[in-house]
Amino acid sequence: MIHIAVVGGLREELLTLAQVAHEQLGAHVHFSLYDYMNEVEVPDVPYITTVLVESEAKMVAQATEAVASGQVDILMKGIISTRTVLKEVLKSDYELVTQPLLSHVALADIPSASRQLLISDAAMNIEPDVDSLIHITNNAITVAHSHGIKQPKVALLSSTEQVNSKMPSSLLAHEVSVYFKKRADAVVSGPLSLDLATSEDAVAHKNFDGSVAGNADVLIVPTIDVGNVLYKSLTVFAGATIGGMIVGTRMPIVLTSRSDSTESKLLALTLALDHISNKKEQS
Amino acid sequence: MIHIAVVGGLREELLTLAQVAHEQLGAHVHFSLYDYMNEVEVPDVPYITTVLVESEAKMVAQATEAVASGQVDILMKGIISTRTVLKEVLKSDYELVTQPLLSHVALADIPSASRQLLISDAAMNIEPDVDSLIHITNNAITVAHSHGIKQPKVALLSSTEQVNSKMPSSLLAHEVSVYFKKRADAVVSGPLSLDLATSEDAVAHKNFDGSVAGNADVLIVPTIDVGNVLYKSLTVFAGATIGGMIVGTRMPIVLTSRSDSTESKLLALTLALDHISNKKEQS
Repeated sequence: MIHIAVVGGLREELLTLAQVAHEQLGAHVHFSLYDYMNEVEVPDVPYITTVLVESEAKMVAQATEAVASGQVDILMKGIISTRTVLKEVLKSDYELVTQPLLSHVALADIPSASRQLLISDAAMNIEPDVDSLIHITNNAITVAHSHGIKQPKVALLSSTEQVNSKMPSSLLAHEVSVYFKKRADAVVSGPLSLDLATSEDAVAHKNFDGSVAGNADVLIVPTIDVGNVLYKSLTVFAGATIGGMIVGTRMPIVLTSRSDSTESKLLALTLALDHISNKKEQS
Repeated sequence: MIHIAVVGGLREELLTLAQVAHEQLGAHVHFSLYDYMNEVEVPDVPYITTVLVESEAKMVAQATEAVASGQVDILMKGIISTRTVLKEVLKSDYELVTQPLLSHVALADIPSASRQLLISDAAMNIEPDVDSLIHITNNAITVAHSHGIKQPKVALLSSTEQVNSKMPSSLLAHEVSVYFKKRADAVVSGPLSLDLATSEDAVAHKNFDGSVAGNADVLIVPTIDVGNVLYKSLTVFAGATIGGMIVGTRMPIVLTSRSDSTESKLLALTLALDHISNKKEQS
């Protein structure tokens, strides 16, 4: 059984998610909907538990404690600010942080693309330096593995393929790619522009050659602005469904926003479930 | 008659462009194909002149001189590096620079969007400061006007709608939006994320309100990396055709790359033609 705690979960859209997830993912998924107000009538079904408390602070604390004690496998943000959830999770008493850096990893399902793409970090780290981008890349590789990609091709995005001292993102990408050179369970390449990372047509047109060229599984962006615009342009103009989670903690924290579709929330949950099953197998 | 000088133009793809442009845009467009080598057999037609010289340097100098003397209205980059063309154009003897900053403006035709979008600067200015972003915005507004949009809605992109001291792009966008507050012939708003700038659905979902919300004509990006990833994601994943030019000089410089489709080159040319006709009307 996989236990999912939804913080701010007694809301229409999260109840719907729990029901759809139960239908599509099967009986092994259990939801605890934590909230301090109740907008919905929860049906009496075995896969949903309701936890109604007095305040937002109590709600977050109780859900996080459930994670810390091992009762919960995945924390999902419902209707509450990301900042409030993260502030609680980062408290050292819980001992939930396992990696040097927390980062956001999104999974994009793009109708026009030949494969799903993992994107990081489009939501959490604003302007990572070399060390931070190494941690971000590391976290994303772990997620790619748990998502079933044994040797993910990772593109470090920039606007160019040449290292150019005037373009910070190209230097950043170069340094990170050097760091991962000897890594056997991932191929990390950069600087690369998005078309040469993801489009075999562009690669052919430009006579480009490289270990990741045209076939990236993972896109690492240099700044949150690059990630955000990529994320948004894929959803707004390319009909993509994207869902994401924060990793670097003992359990993944699924981030959803009120405007996300149920499909997007479900995609994020699937990514987190893969991540959890993989961890359970390894431990 | 509009005279277009193509630098590095005696090549298959640029000859094709001249022929397609003649068919689609009419008899008032004349091409001078400058080159120092000849890959093609140019048909004997009144709308194409061939200028074959001994060296790349001579080719660039002669084409730029033709612009400076007023014989040529639009300079188009063929098979030659952008840097080489710009280096020549920027020489003060020619007196071609008319604005405080040269910038790149692209026009995107996106099948899933309700309107065309102008994007700047995705190709030239790497990390503009407030002053530079003001010039970039100004140049883009001029292009929007010549493209027929009387009061363009301009979105200054960031990852957020709140001004956040930790997010440089939000501060930048805020300062630029304040500068343009009293401008009557454009509505400039920011910081805005891409979905709230371009998607009425996203605006409705998030209960967002603003003068540009969901209806931007022009997207100003905070860095070249944001512009590049937007440009590439639109072409690779959303089937967009995009063409661009450099403005801030007496005549626009149409940039095309070898891998651009004829449609993309034609779109860039159309944008430049609008710009030229508008200037001719005003002078």
